[in-house]
Amino acid sequence: MSEPNLSAPSDDEVELLDRWWRAANYLSVGQIYLLDNPLLEVPLSAEHVKPRLLGHWGTTAGQNFLYAHLSRAVRLRDLDAIYVCGPGHGGPAVVANTYLEGTYSEVYPHIGQDAEGLRRLFRQFSFPGGIPSHAAPQTPGSINEGGELGYSLMHATGAVLDSPEAVAFCVIGDGEAETGPLATSWHAPAFLDPVRDGTVVPILHLNGYKIANPAVLARLPEEQLLSLIRGWGWEPVVVAGDDPATMHRDLAAALGRVLDRVDEIRREAREHPPAVPVDATARLDGAVPDGGPRPPAWPMIVFRSPKGWTGPRTVDGQQVEGTFRAHQVPLSEVRTDPEHLRQLDAWLRSYRAEELFDEAGALRPELRALAPEGDRRMGANPRTNGGLLLRPLELPDFREHGVRVASPGTTTSSATTVLGQWLRDVMRANPDRFRLFGPDETASNRLQAVFEETDRAWQQPVVATDDHLAPGGRVMEVLSEHLLQGWLEGYLLTGRHGLMSSYEAFAHIVDSMVNQHAKWLHDIERIPWRREIASLNYLITSHVWRQDHNGSSHQDPGFMDHVVNKKAEIARVYLPPDANSLLAVADHVLRSRQSINVIVAGKQQQLDYLSMDEAIAHVTRGLGIWEWASTTDGEPDVVLGCAGEVPTMEALAAADLLRQHLPDLKVRLVNVVDLMRLESPAQHPHGLDDAEFDALFTADKPVVFAFHGYPTLVHRLTYQRSNHAQFHVHGYIEEGTTTTPFDMVMLNRLDRFTLAMDVIDRVPFLRSSQAALRQRFADARLAARAYTREHGEDDPAISGWTWPGH
Amino acid sequence: MSEPNLSAPSDDEVELLDRWWRAANYLSVGQIYLLDNPLLEVPLSAEHVKPRLLGHWGTTAGQNFLYAHLSRAVRLRDLDAIYVCGPGHGGPAVVANTYLEGTYSEVYPHIGQDAEGLRRLFRQFSFPGGIPSHAAPQTPGSINEGGELGYSLMHATGAVLDSPEAVAFCVIGDGEAETGPLATSWHAPAFLDPVRDGTVVPILHLNGYKIANPAVLARLPEEQLLSLIRGWGWEPVVVAGDDPATMHRDLAAALGRVLDRVDEIRREAREHPPAVPVDATARLDGAVPDGGPRPPAWPMIVFRSPKGWTGPRTVDGQQVEGTFRAHQVPLSEVRTDPEHLRQLDAWLRSYRAEELFDEAGALRPELRALAPEGDRRMGANPRTNGGLLLRPLELPDFREHGVRVASPGTTTSSATTVLGQWLRDVMRANPDRFRLFGPDETASNRLQAVFEETDRAWQQPVVATDDHLAPGGRVMEVLSEHLLQGWLEGYLLTGRHGLMSSYEAFAHIVDSMVNQHAKWLHDIERIPWRREIASLNYLITSHVWRQDHNGSSHQDPGFMDHVVNKKAEIARVYLPPDANSLLAVADHVLRSRQSINVIVAGKQQQLDYLSMDEAIAHVTRGLGIWEWASTTDGEPDVVLGCAGEVPTMEALAAADLLRQHLPDLKVRLVNVVDLMRLESPAQHPHGLDDAEFDALFTADKPVVFAFHGYPTLVHRLTYQRSNHAQFHVHGYIEEGTTTTPFDMVMLNRLDRFTLAMDVIDRVPFLRSSQAALRQRFADARLAARAYTREHGEDDPAISGWTWPGH
Repeated sequence: MSEPNLSAPSDDEVELLDRWWRAANYLSVGQIYLLDNPLLEVPLSAEHVKPRLLGHWGTTAGQNFLYAHLSRAVRLRDLDAIYVCGPGHGGPAVVANTYLEGTYSEVYPHIGQDAEGLRRLFRQFSFPGGIPSHAAPQTPGSINEGGELGYSLMHATGAVLDSPEAVAFCVIGDGEAETGPLATSWHAPAFLDPVRDGTVVPILHLNGYKIANPAVLARLPEEQLLSLIRGWGWEPVVVAGDDPATMHRDLAAALGRVLDRVDEIRREAREHPPAVPVDATARLDGAVPDGGPRPPAWPMIVFRSPKGWTGPRTVDGQQVEGTFRAHQVPLSEVRTDPEHLRQLDAWLRSYRAEELFDEAGALRPELRALAPEGDRRMGANPRTNGGLLLRPLELPDFREHGVRVASPGTTTSSATTVLGQWLRDVMRANPDRFRLFGPDETASNRLQAVFEETDRAWQQPVVATDDHLAPGGRVMEVLSEHLLQGWLEGYLLTGRHGLMSSYEAFAHIVDSMVNQHAKWLHDIERIPWRREIASLNYLITSHVWRQDHNGSSHQDPGFMDHVVNKKAEIARVYLPPDANSLLAVADHVLRSRQSINVIVAGKQQQLDYLSMDEAIAHVTRGLGIWEWASTTDGEPDVVLGCAGEVPTMEALAAADLLRQHLPDLKVRLVNVVDLMRLESPAQHPHGLDDAEFDALFTADKPVVFAFHGYPTLVHRLTYQRSNHAQFHVHGYIEEGTTTTPFDMVMLNRLDRFTLAMDVIDRVPFLRSSQAALRQRFADARLAARAYTREHGEDDPAISGWTWPGH
Repeated sequence: MSEPNLSAPSDDEVELLDRWWRAANYLSVGQIYLLDNPLLEVPLSAEHVKPRLLGHWGTTAGQNFLYAHLSRAVRLRDLDAIYVCGPGHGGPAVVANTYLEGTYSEVYPHIGQDAEGLRRLFRQFSFPGGIPSHAAPQTPGSINEGGELGYSLMHATGAVLDSPEAVAFCVIGDGEAETGPLATSWHAPAFLDPVRDGTVVPILHLNGYKIANPAVLARLPEEQLLSLIRGWGWEPVVVAGDDPATMHRDLAAALGRVLDRVDEIRREAREHPPAVPVDATARLDGAVPDGGPRPPAWPMIVFRSPKGWTGPRTVDGQQVEGTFRAHQVPLSEVRTDPEHLRQLDAWLRSYRAEELFDEAGALRPELRALAPEGDRRMGANPRTNGGLLLRPLELPDFREHGVRVASPGTTTSSATTVLGQWLRDVMRANPDRFRLFGPDETASNRLQAVFEETDRAWQQPVVATDDHLAPGGRVMEVLSEHLLQGWLEGYLLTGRHGLMSSYEAFAHIVDSMVNQHAKWLHDIERIPWRREIASLNYLITSHVWRQDHNGSSHQDPGFMDHVVNKKAEIARVYLPPDANSLLAVADHVLRSRQSINVIVAGKQQQLDYLSMDEAIAHVTRGLGIWEWASTTDGEPDVVLGCAGEVPTMEALAAADLLRQHLPDLKVRLVNVVDLMRLESPAQHPHGLDDAEFDALFTADKPVVFAFHGYPTLVHRLTYQRSNHAQFHVHGYIEEGTTTTPFDMVMLNRLDRFTLAMDVIDRVPFLRSSQAALRQRFADARLAARAYTREHGEDDPAISGWTWPGH
């Protein structure tokens, strides 16, 4: 027998591929339908069938077909490859194939390679106490949940960054392809570097229909579809039809062609790295002349197969195979309709299980041999269980980057500029496992020091007017929060580390993706063979209070609220008030695992309060009394609480006003960095117990709290505290426009004057005695507003305020 | 003088176009820089310049160029056209052009057509108390905020639905084009009907750079870009360069070609409506053979012009025009650097304002004549102030669709099936102004009765296995929540009505779009010339408690939390417990204006509780005591609160358990439909005052509350109530998987047994005396769980529970 040829399988090989496919199809139908009688050793009867038929047959047979061929390709080419299953509810296929290759029984030993194992495999699917119907965290080999659609291609792209040997086969459903996130994911070739990064092989799986409708891409004329794919920067190879024998040969030939071309592109790029064409000349209108060096068009596959392939052709007189009616469960009345039962029996028997499994129920060895061995099996590739590969970051000492603070509140820094210098060193120390992600705003967010170490990833020509672009750059910038989030998720899920910076308002763009990642992290903790991965870290730096110049559309602090709804074991929110505390928080989150960390910190010049040592101590505690800003070290008359850079400054300025005008008032200032400390230990692992909480915020004194976000967030975190009724929270109340920073806080009643007035209102002995002072504060506020309206900038006495010291 | 030819302007016309362009450029630079001296009548000095320089010059000159030519086209062809400004911060351009055409001074009379008007126009831009820097609600002619990017093309598409005469010129920024939502918006030709709908003319504005990077589409080889555009289904016409004289002639020719082709397509479609090709034969693999009837490729324009065109070529020795450095303010130190001041002066004078404005500061009449008249001006087109065109829906009597309820809790209905029958009649009565939007799930969400009246919009071939597709269909289905939301927003903003159905979990996909629409609604209320529009209505019907079969990825009730963060004047959340109450709520929201209404209602068979009259009364009150389910009409021992279809059933079943086992316990059941009634009138216009609240929930008795969403949402709405410390809320606590309905509520401790146990725990005299009963409930719960795990379905005694009556 000659050496197997990937492109031209022998008749024997085709027969083996077809038997594997039939085996996977059999296992898929079994999962959807059967409670028992897994090998049909007795006549099929209603009690062998699940009472609730859940699952999606439509996409399954096509994916089984692909998996069989991809497994063979991995074996013949010794590929380090993963399989990303995009189509929704494609679970039965991935479970079936990872079971056939043996991975499934290794991670779930109770599901063995015998009839009892098959029975359990079938029963558990979409069954109470069992497994979900998607390619979920529970599924070996999966890094992409097929529940919320649209993220497969970005996950696959993130998975191969900085992994030159990795190949991600990414099956994309034609339904999923209609989503916005998937639609922009196609631009990957503009960013993926053939030298530094691995390869993504998209496989656009057209099978005509979604739940009820044709899919847009499936119904396009082929010429138009190919034009679209070439426009995205890929070279398509089409495999289409419904005759299995022809399709086996066509797909094998296509895979051979694709993988040969991948080798060629990679070899060419590695042997002759394209000189960055810095001498290309852009015209003034931004066009770069055609004909110069261009990134390769990576090969991909368009795979068109019938929806519900090999399933019932017609049911109750209606065509099912090849139509939307095959989307879920083609035969729905099996327990009650004898004809449906008969059709299911015939359908299952059409795969001739006896040719696939031995008497004991084990896959026949010649079929098993089709799959690669050990970690090369796509279900066992360690990249898909990223924690296995996770190596901690080499973190340079952040203390060396701290700013000197001789006296609190008298000097200023740009916190993210300081952070950027440390991040530059983090990138330098971890060239293989750390990337920064941000929507075209790394420099605008003042992290530009990282460009001393690396560039922005970019595969198109670079011209003289460009800034820090290079094929091997490790800063990912694209104007799509979805794409950045998806790339970062793929990077984290395969065992690496990262940080994403975002405008606060626009972090909401990925709310739904955050939900899905939070669920994935939650599940990892409950799956014994899954290993912990690095945290998903956000730096929210162009935040609500510094979007005065961008106006109301850029003002929304609700991303914190969204994250706080997630499981307490996962959700973390940090509001460092100054540069040194931001460094301490950043170091902490880059060491953390399994969390979603939201850091809100400013990029503008802002007062420094804490020396490095004080910052470390404060961040470690998560919150605490600032004695230097308080006028008592005993029981206060009022507590000024604050969380967030701008609210902290306003609270301090209010404390300053109160000290000037009411020197005998006992004010305590409490700053909160770790927002989740406001909850109780029963609610959150960072929670503060009631005694500690009362020791800070008192059991009965008014608390005027200046908060970065929506006031209700503080209320929902503290409503169980004994003193909650005395919490008066100031924050964002959805007022804003294009104006000045101080006008923004005034519009939302978070300004120093309003806070000072609120103290007078809340402290009983002031309320009655200090009406005149209250009016002075109100007048000062009006004067500040008038100044801003007249001059177009804030009164320098306010914007330049510093802590006077005492 | 011969008749003007759109495609071939005379030299005089080119000169006029160029002068208009210069005028718009002058006004744009003036807005960004000048506080005073608007006509440069005295030498420019630092005090004429704004202290904070905000605004985005980069995109502006290109848009001014386009607007001039589009205005001319509108005039020559008498088009009913609007201008959608996609590029971020494109405000100066749209403000300048609507000022030049006279619209601006009509809606803002204090900004007249003279030097003082110019001074005010300049000063207000991005100035405290002034206007935002984007094409915002404050901008006449705008229906698209240029703040959060990506929605221009979907807004433009929604704007022309059901408006056959409308043309939407949609300028798309090359940065914006990288977003997912924009990337999938290009599929519009698959849905827009040349007979029923108007025309979208996308103008992809390439100017090379975003804030810091090249834009992906701008850097592609032209051939690849054109391939991409053709793949999306458009026929591109390219206009590119930096020489104004050439560009004027090229753009005029391109517009002539585009509009001729639009006429041709529309005429062809209207004279020879394409027979729906029902006889086309799909292959089993879903391919439809090439060569059959296909939708037209609509023409569009690729407009490539320099970033910062006509601005400073170099500043401080660095190239600015044609680079990312032109993105915002090219000269940033004008108040302190004399050279910058000199450059600004030269820049402004380069436009030769004296040739454009007369001595008084009014635009010269020959230039004004370039623009169309009255409502034809793009800034004055009533479509862009949709409330002007808004006609109330003809709403058929929903009471006729109600289900008969002889006795509460004994019969069942699918609430959305019932609603669908009414919606069918709504669609029938309002063929010109109401559409349904949903991601491929109108039928799956049980609204399929609407297909008795209309079809799904679809322009590609229709084959025998398709279901209710037609070119003129008015149900919009695509697997992109972004696209649906954007289309619906465009439809609403131009004066129509709609309803979007969504899986609850996936409504989060559009969180950020909801924010932007909420801000737009908020602004409308504060702009005297803007008119109120129809509400944005969501039907959340595949909700968290009925996603047991889809698993954890489909389970998230947080969309309510997100909407509740918006301004109280806008946010509304309704949780009708049954079919009749859903009808009453739906009728209410379709009559409402200026709100974002979230309706959460089930599609599965669910108990009916309220007769039509009772439902109307209950929905009108928004919440109330269900006497029939309570065991006292006096002061209760405990209140069972509930909101949402499934929690209501569980609360009732708990009441049933309590009544059986503790017949003397005084239980009051309170159901909440209108969630915002839980707030106070000071917090929300629907709020209940404290006395009424206490009358329902008592001042001091325990309240065990079964809630559809996250428990903290009820806490944040009620934390100010006197009895809040006694509120014990059960809801979704982020537990779930693929399982059964009752297992879902058990996993989240929302089940009847847990509620009944909680009553025992919270009522002091039960806590001590009823330990045995509590254990019985706990045992029953464990038994239910064991049953489910064994049988794969819920115990019929539980899933089939009905209210026993008494």
